[in-house]
Amino acid sequence: MLPTIAWDGDVIVMVDQRKLPTREIYVRCKTGNDVAKAITTMVIRGAPAIGVAAAMGLALGAARSAATGTRQFAVDFQKLADTLAATRPTAVNLFWAIERMKQALAAGVRAGEGVPELRARLRAEADAIHDADVESCRAIGRHGQALVADGARVLTHCNAGALATAGYGTALGVVRGAVDAGKRVTVMADETRPFLQGARLTAWELVKDGIPTTVITDNMAAAMMAAGHVDLVVVGADRIAANGDAANKIGTYGLAIVAAAHQVPFYVAAPWSTIDLATPSGAQIPIEERNTKEVTHLAGTQVTPDGAAIRNPAFDVTPARYITAIVTERGVLRPPFDTALATAAS
Amino acid sequence: MLPTIAWDGDVIVMVDQRKLPTREIYVRCKTGNDVAKAITTMVIRGAPAIGVAAAMGLALGAARSAATGTRQFAVDFQKLADTLAATRPTAVNLFWAIERMKQALAAGVRAGEGVPELRARLRAEADAIHDADVESCRAIGRHGQALVADGARVLTHCNAGALATAGYGTALGVVRGAVDAGKRVTVMADETRPFLQGARLTAWELVKDGIPTTVITDNMAAAMMAAGHVDLVVVGADRIAANGDAANKIGTYGLAIVAAAHQVPFYVAAPWSTIDLATPSGAQIPIEERNTKEVTHLAGTQVTPDGAAIRNPAFDVTPARYITAIVTERGVLRPPFDTALATAAS
Repeated sequence: MLPTIAWDGDVIVMVDQRKLPTREIYVRCKTGNDVAKAITTMVIRGAPAIGVAAAMGLALGAARSAATGTRQFAVDFQKLADTLAATRPTAVNLFWAIERMKQALAAGVRAGEGVPELRARLRAEADAIHDADVESCRAIGRHGQALVADGARVLTHCNAGALATAGYGTALGVVRGAVDAGKRVTVMADETRPFLQGARLTAWELVKDGIPTTVITDNMAAAMMAAGHVDLVVVGADRIAANGDAANKIGTYGLAIVAAAHQVPFYVAAPWSTIDLATPSGAQIPIEERNTKEVTHLAGTQVTPDGAAIRNPAFDVTPARYITAIVTERGVLRPPFDTALATAAS
Repeated sequence: MLPTIAWDGDVIVMVDQRKLPTREIYVRCKTGNDVAKAITTMVIRGAPAIGVAAAMGLALGAARSAATGTRQFAVDFQKLADTLAATRPTAVNLFWAIERMKQALAAGVRAGEGVPELRARLRAEADAIHDADVESCRAIGRHGQALVADGARVLTHCNAGALATAGYGTALGVVRGAVDAGKRVTVMADETRPFLQGARLTAWELVKDGIPTTVITDNMAAAMMAAGHVDLVVVGADRIAANGDAANKIGTYGLAIVAAAHQVPFYVAAPWSTIDLATPSGAQIPIEERNTKEVTHLAGTQVTPDGAAIRNPAFDVTPARYITAIVTERGVLRPPFDTALATAAS
């Protein structure tokens, strides 16, 4: 299992995903605010992983709270929850995890627990969220592997792998599920500009697992499909609306269009915590616009001229009509997604 | 006029396109082989520009030839022509320019000219090719500007600008033609991985010209179209087959697909020297696969893990059905391109 995020005593340890693949450096978070900063600066990223990190961050904050009474303890908790909620806007798992932690706190308060018991309850809830995320990914792998034929050549975008989750991965969970089922699978990884999660993270974890992996620039995907090198696409998601529209890393939408043009199946794999039934369609999903320096500078070198404007939306929305199936721990959902999601939710 | 390539006495001077936009460094080619190396290493790139460079390189080689007799002179010429022809396989302008120089030499030999006259003839032919390229670009601009409405937001890929030609540009010639016609035009430039011609070159020359320019990563184009930020796409070409299929920088094909999905017109602008009627369709166009280090390293920093395979095709082929019109100095050609090209050729 890859070390995305883990407790080391009462400290949270994360591999610094900005430094991979050439340097494996670990960041130690000693406060909840450290965790918030790690999410904002993308030490840790990936919708499920930041949900898990937020939950663990709240447990860490609770452990560090100087409050002696439950009222101040709850105030400290809420303040940290607000800080964590403000880190990144698109992935709904973040808000889902914070909400679960809030409900855990509320349940403890209702039960008349004192601060030590509340700390233990929040730590247990965070651990449950962490472990359930891994279990969800493994279930996604078991369900999703049925979509992957022996010998399949799978194209993926960004990193929806062990590093984007508490472990095993969503899109890469489908790949691992197929491998675990004895199938031979090769992966083509879009490098995924600007942050290069595909080149740096997806390729790194697949090479570590011995799964043959080829890195391409994002703009090569269409040519690879035209040449017959891609049997299916599987990506993760940061938020899936009630109608099946899926927000995911910038470039996913264009990839879905070119997959459709080549009759290549396009699958979205995500834990149920990514489903946001309160958001009717992709049009209502907030899209984070990140620092332009991610585009203007490569490894510290400026690649755009002064005077040029820059856009850097971190995500785009793939309309449901481009999605062949959505794979969650509850099974493989097929269109129409509005009814499939509503049914799976109940 | 931007200094893509020019004579400085009997030396050929080129701006080093690998160093832009932050450093404006000039490379001085003193031999024909220097020019071949400059083309191979992409000091100069862009289909029309490498055609012009090859012609000028042959004139330079002729000036430097130690031959005293026409037979040895022709042998030296042929050897250099072979070297230049082996630099890059996809852009047909290279072979077109070499062929024109060969015919000039043959005409001189037939006329009984001695070495000094042959040198002068080759220099004059290279200069004619250079100047005609600029004139072609200006004509492309005059024809193409009719496709660009006042206020248009133009998306382009790679650099088909002054730097890709002897001056003015093809795709950017259309933009400049519209600006010269008094229209307000803004440009969105795909950064164009892996070599970043869009971020580094297109943005640089447009900012220099005062044309508002926004750089995006290639994978943002679809989201920009979905948001209604793009009125038309115009790109260059490295080779256009008899049926209208167009080879151009990797990523062009995917861009054409997403443009079609958004009903955004997709134009290809290129001088007639890019038309290759001897090649029936895109399937017969050789696609250069370049060094994987262009993908694995950014500004000297490794971004892919050891053990991952890499693909680096420098071009792809956009089928004619995705192309709204082809703009050449002979006018704006509309589908069906096989007949339009055959008619324009005659």
